[in-house]
Amino acid sequence: MAAVNFVIIGYGGMGSYHEKNLMSSEKEKINLVGVYDILEERQEVARAKGLSTYESFEEVLADKRIEVVLIAVPNDLHKSMSIAALKAGKHVVCEKPATLNTEEFDEILAVAADTGNRFIVHQNRRWDPDFLIVRDLYQSQPIGSVFQIESRVNGANGIPGDWRHLKKHGGGMLLDWGIHLLDQMLWLVDSPIKDVQVDFSYVLGDEVDDGFISFITFENGIKAIVEVGTTNYVKLPRWYVKATEGTARIDDWDLSGEMVRAIQTSNETMPQPIQAGVGLTKTMAPPSEDATETLSLPKASAEYDSFYSNVYHVIRDDVTPIVKNTEVRNVLQLIEQMFEQEE
Amino acid sequence: MAAVNFVIIGYGGMGSYHEKNLMSSEKEKINLVGVYDILEERQEVARAKGLSTYESFEEVLADKRIEVVLIAVPNDLHKSMSIAALKAGKHVVCEKPATLNTEEFDEILAVAADTGNRFIVHQNRRWDPDFLIVRDLYQSQPIGSVFQIESRVNGANGIPGDWRHLKKHGGGMLLDWGIHLLDQMLWLVDSPIKDVQVDFSYVLGDEVDDGFISFITFENGIKAIVEVGTTNYVKLPRWYVKATEGTARIDDWDLSGEMVRAIQTSNETMPQPIQAGVGLTKTMAPPSEDATETLSLPKASAEYDSFYSNVYHVIRDDVTPIVKNTEVRNVLQLIEQMFEQEE
Repeated sequence: MAAVNFVIIGYGGMGSYHEKNLMSSEKEKINLVGVYDILEERQEVARAKGLSTYESFEEVLADKRIEVVLIAVPNDLHKSMSIAALKAGKHVVCEKPATLNTEEFDEILAVAADTGNRFIVHQNRRWDPDFLIVRDLYQSQPIGSVFQIESRVNGANGIPGDWRHLKKHGGGMLLDWGIHLLDQMLWLVDSPIKDVQVDFSYVLGDEVDDGFISFITFENGIKAIVEVGTTNYVKLPRWYVKATEGTARIDDWDLSGEMVRAIQTSNETMPQPIQAGVGLTKTMAPPSEDATETLSLPKASAEYDSFYSNVYHVIRDDVTPIVKNTEVRNVLQLIEQMFEQEE
Repeated sequence: MAAVNFVIIGYGGMGSYHEKNLMSSEKEKINLVGVYDILEERQEVARAKGLSTYESFEEVLADKRIEVVLIAVPNDLHKSMSIAALKAGKHVVCEKPATLNTEEFDEILAVAADTGNRFIVHQNRRWDPDFLIVRDLYQSQPIGSVFQIESRVNGANGIPGDWRHLKKHGGGMLLDWGIHLLDQMLWLVDSPIKDVQVDFSYVLGDEVDDGFISFITFENGIKAIVEVGTTNYVKLPRWYVKATEGTARIDDWDLSGEMVRAIQTSNETMPQPIQAGVGLTKTMAPPSEDATETLSLPKASAEYDSFYSNVYHVIRDDVTPIVKNTEVRNVLQLIEQMFEQEE
């Protein structure tokens, strides 16, 4: 079957990343026809690459060649542009956060249902290797049953971009990086949430959060800590996973880390006490070498399709999207709940 | 003036640690007369060292030579033995936790006030080098004003000892390691607590907690995370400190770690985006080298006396104890509050 014809709306950082890094490796399935950006300089970049450009969003929607519109513009424009595209008979792929709240999201879904066109959100970090390792720990249980997952990203460069500092555009780190980490966590654990506590950070003095720490308890008993910080000059590990027979730590995106598992021995040796500050401790001493083994972290692999390959099959073959709208909605609902706690 | 005559009640791990590591370096101020332990084998060890031993606690209290009784027995016995010793005209040094709740603590203080004898709690970890580094960061502000302090101890050897698995003896990790970390935090920050949230861990299936994560907000705006775990086969850093101009991390009791401070540059260079999983990020990229500098962690030093030197001066010269009973009570009150949240 023919490749699906795409247009990119918003040819900034993310829009051009889609073109260069995501669509380009799926040439047989994804055909990028053109680009629309409000900045003339970005349009020129697109033309230099041989892509069509448009004078207006309306002109895009009128282009019969276009089957799918990729929306990669500031968050507060996602809803109106998605609805306009769906009504114009296009499918829509939209960057995260799909919308700023569930109400807006439901409006889009209603139009998608009316028109019979697809609305698909791009949650790219379901393909991150570090996440895939944690997913393997959770599903294959090499260190037993996972009961606590801590997911952190720490940066020291503040909130990125311009509009991300402003509330009306859907700025702040919960809607930027937070939504990635929460999407990963909720997709992984796949259980209703029993309780959530959140503490937002406003160190930078912006009107939006520059980070947060959240504590989630799932109904299946699993506990999660999800944290984003943009004023952290040194980092805490990206992932920390506790399971019934061991613990894993992934330090960074380079996948460095450590994984240790308890082993059952007939005559278990108690650890030797260590000097800890001005005291001794056996409790906090490393376990004796007979009692544990160090394992390699599992290989990161997704048993599912790449995002754009999946989009192709959703459009052409009506397969189920990997990023389901019910899942996207659950994450938006959690985010709403977190913002409500703040008030 | 003459050294103060001490007796140790409970010559187990902690009691003998006091003798070997704390009293022995203060020979001119602390004179250990004898030991009382319910286990005959421990009494023999004491006699072999030339120490007096006793047939009963009553016999200890009747010994006119003894000025101070060190109580290093299971937690649930602290109250009755402390009160008996105070009434017998002895000063008391007591291991932490002084008591299992503030009510018991107030009972002891009432007897101390009546009798005019001293009751002093041993919170040894106010002298831990890692804590002293954090104290320097807080007070001297080499990375600016500290606004977030995370204090964690992670072990994989479970709850230690026998009686520490039982509620009636004051077992569990909040009363074991937790009380150390909370004492450090409350003494350091020295502000009333506005809010505390706690999540206890019962992974080992004991009737007492095998660890906990707590989130404390102080009225002065500082936030703290205090965490103890005994089922952690790999560790998170011992300390993580965020301040207005930088961040510090102390990995372990060996004082390894990292400290980075922002520097003001006239033409600040934005960091280069890094590949993070399947995406790019500038936000979570390391800050550009012009914008930060790596500092050595400060030297750990206490400007205050050692514990036993201070005890000597409290007894002989009526100086103020370093570990004040109002502070001990605040920690016990916080612990009560944390246990109440669980119910």
